[in-house]
Amino acid sequence: MSENTTRPGAEPFTQRSPRVVAARRLTRRAEREKAGRFLAEGANAVGAALAGERGLVHELFVTADAAEANPELVSAARAAGARVSPVTDRAAAALSETVTPQGIVAVCELLGRSLDAVLPPAARLVAVLVDVADPGNAGTVIRVADAAGADAVILAGDSVDPHNGKCVRASAGSLFHVPLARTRDAHAALEVCRAAGLRLFGADGYAKTGLDSLALDVPAAWVFGNEAHGLPGRILESVDEGVRIPIYGQAESLNLATAAAVCLYGSAMALSPAERRSSGG
Amino acid sequence: MSENTTRPGAEPFTQRSPRVVAARRLTRRAEREKAGRFLAEGANAVGAALAGERGLVHELFVTADAAEANPELVSAARAAGARVSPVTDRAAAALSETVTPQGIVAVCELLGRSLDAVLPPAARLVAVLVDVADPGNAGTVIRVADAAGADAVILAGDSVDPHNGKCVRASAGSLFHVPLARTRDAHAALEVCRAAGLRLFGADGYAKTGLDSLALDVPAAWVFGNEAHGLPGRILESVDEGVRIPIYGQAESLNLATAAAVCLYGSAMALSPAERRSSGG
Repeated sequence: MSENTTRPGAEPFTQRSPRVVAARRLTRRAEREKAGRFLAEGANAVGAALAGERGLVHELFVTADAAEANPELVSAARAAGARVSPVTDRAAAALSETVTPQGIVAVCELLGRSLDAVLPPAARLVAVLVDVADPGNAGTVIRVADAAGADAVILAGDSVDPHNGKCVRASAGSLFHVPLARTRDAHAALEVCRAAGLRLFGADGYAKTGLDSLALDVPAAWVFGNEAHGLPGRILESVDEGVRIPIYGQAESLNLATAAAVCLYGSAMALSPAERRSSGG
Repeated sequence: MSENTTRPGAEPFTQRSPRVVAARRLTRRAEREKAGRFLAEGANAVGAALAGERGLVHELFVTADAAEANPELVSAARAAGARVSPVTDRAAAALSETVTPQGIVAVCELLGRSLDAVLPPAARLVAVLVDVADPGNAGTVIRVADAAGADAVILAGDSVDPHNGKCVRASAGSLFHVPLARTRDAHAALEVCRAAGLRLFGADGYAKTGLDSLALDVPAAWVFGNEAHGLPGRILESVDEGVRIPIYGQAESLNLATAAAVCLYGSAMALSPAERRSSGG
């Protein structure tokens, strides 16, 4: 190979260089599945990919400016055995799906684990997404689940590919923090959670039980449905309890990410013994 | 005037008709301020505008298809004394800021109230946004505040105009449900809440007090800052308590809308006597 791209001073790849052209294909789901790799753009995502035990970085494309701004990421990539490939600004833009390319893009190994291996022993909090369509929503829920200390996120049924660029961005690095599994079979996802001793709560705007009348201090899997249609009836029949977030005003509903935040944090705060409510109120 | 636009069978307005051209200008903030009006697109938003005591609809632009799909909105607009103007699909697209125009757009009176008049007597829950920049975020927080039964939302400092099309869409009708006020002076917003007897909680990732150790069963104003920079120091010094949402995992933070959901619902559920936790757990 004539280009030694890790040698300082080598000519940067352009948007027409074969490695960049090949990487650009990873913006498409079918190509990601075929290659078993995906793109993580931006210093935050790249940092999370390199820091996590779960993030396996194969190659780092980086512009001169981004390399100067993030020397620790370039070093970490080299230390992790990743190929570091200088690219032109236009090549970075070609690899970016945003209006303002950040000049730093990692080619990472796909993150999904098998459903059987995704839950750690003694899991206490899991988020299951069934048929969630919007990648931004999925990424935001993954971020919320991470913040709430969830042990895993399972994307089930027809849910979006979490390696989609919008999902990666919305997750703000959390994609690399929380164990993820994907399964077409939503019932299998529920069964894995049930077998782990988790109580299955299905978020449902029409449920009889309100979140405010629920005992939340139990290990739980929260199951969330599609943005427009909610959970399918057959899933609602399978959960232990359908749960409605009380609506105190005139809004018809919450959106998926804010509903997930209320439910997951409800459980997380009830389960956490670290900082108990200090007031007797 | 030669065009009687409310008469069935009249020629629909095109994207070049003066009324459509004038309405289209309302997609710009300066034009909204000048005209004192803004656009609400889609059946949900138009329905909320017509249903609410706060929504004053001056004109309804509607395509033939949208009129057929939403006869009750056309009737309600006529009953409310609004002008109903049939438009072509292209005119509806010109008035739309979305990729998939819904064919129904209302010209509404701006919603803001004066700061002094925005809080009802005995207000118990208020959201104050300081320097919130993204209209989608602002709209989502308004929707969450509505769902949580907030008495008002105050947009303070350099916050985005809530009449922005993206904010209107993200609020999913809640813009017309919750009393809104806008003020450049963030301190004045805090003082109005304090004078109403509300406890001022400032959301702050660096605060000592965690949400899980806070007595939430008190009337409260939640103060949220800019997406990137959080609350300014001078605001944090003015609130009664800075409050941190505990992060149980590896995420650095929550995004604004999910953080607001956790805080506002924390207060709403603690304040609501309707459905108390049934478990002693």
